[in-house]
Amino acid sequence: MVQRLIRLDNTFAALSDRTRRGILERLGRGEASISDLAAEFAMTLTGLKKHVQILEDAALVATEKVGRVRYCRLDPRPLSDEIAWFGKYQKMQEERLDSLGAFLARNDKETRK
Amino acid sequence: MVQRLIRLDNTFAALSDRTRRGILERLGRGEASISDLAAEFAMTLTGLKKHVQILEDAALVATEKVGRVRYCRLDPRPLSDEIAWFGKYQKMQEERLDSLGAFLARNDKETRK
Repeated sequence: MVQRLIRLDNTFAALSDRTRRGILERLGRGEASISDLAAEFAMTLTGLKKHVQILEDAALVATEKVGRVRYCRLDPRPLSDEIAWFGKYQKMQEERLDSLGAFLARNDKETRK
Repeated sequence: MVQRLIRLDNTFAALSDRTRRGILERLGRGEASISDLAAEFAMTLTGLKKHVQILEDAALVATEKVGRVRYCRLDPRPLSDEIAWFGKYQKMQEERLDSLGAFLARNDKETRK
């Protein structure tokens, strides 16, 4: 349970940066080396590596070293907990809207009496 | 466009903390004052306020001051960009798995020749 909470913390933190989301979208089109990514995102190798490390810790990206080159690819882990969280949140929002609607309707009825 | 990127950054950052996700889940059951929330989450008022501020900046929570009490409720903003992002990510993962599958099948065929 705590592991799943940590996983959610890590995924959302990893996704909270537009460069990291950009890297994921880039890897969605195929694997790339750290140097490829640094060139494409106009970043230093050190800066790029930090982003990849955060994505790797959140198990969104997997890396593999072949010779002197480290390749990155999307980790095909299903984001089921994350997607379930959004589903639950949407349901809560709808329930809040329903109860607000019921309150306004009741209030309106009282006023018309 | 940049506004939407900032919004995504803020939403995911707000969701990357389990206490903040807990506050949202609590507000899903009805509005609460800052003091109510501080008591329920066993936090100081100052600590709780910081979390609420982050949720408010991400437009996930709306607050209203009535007399000396500040009430918090879920903001019914639809998380459509966030949900769309996950949808896009899942599609990318599937395409990656498909191309890996095609590669393995091709490889297998070559080996059997």
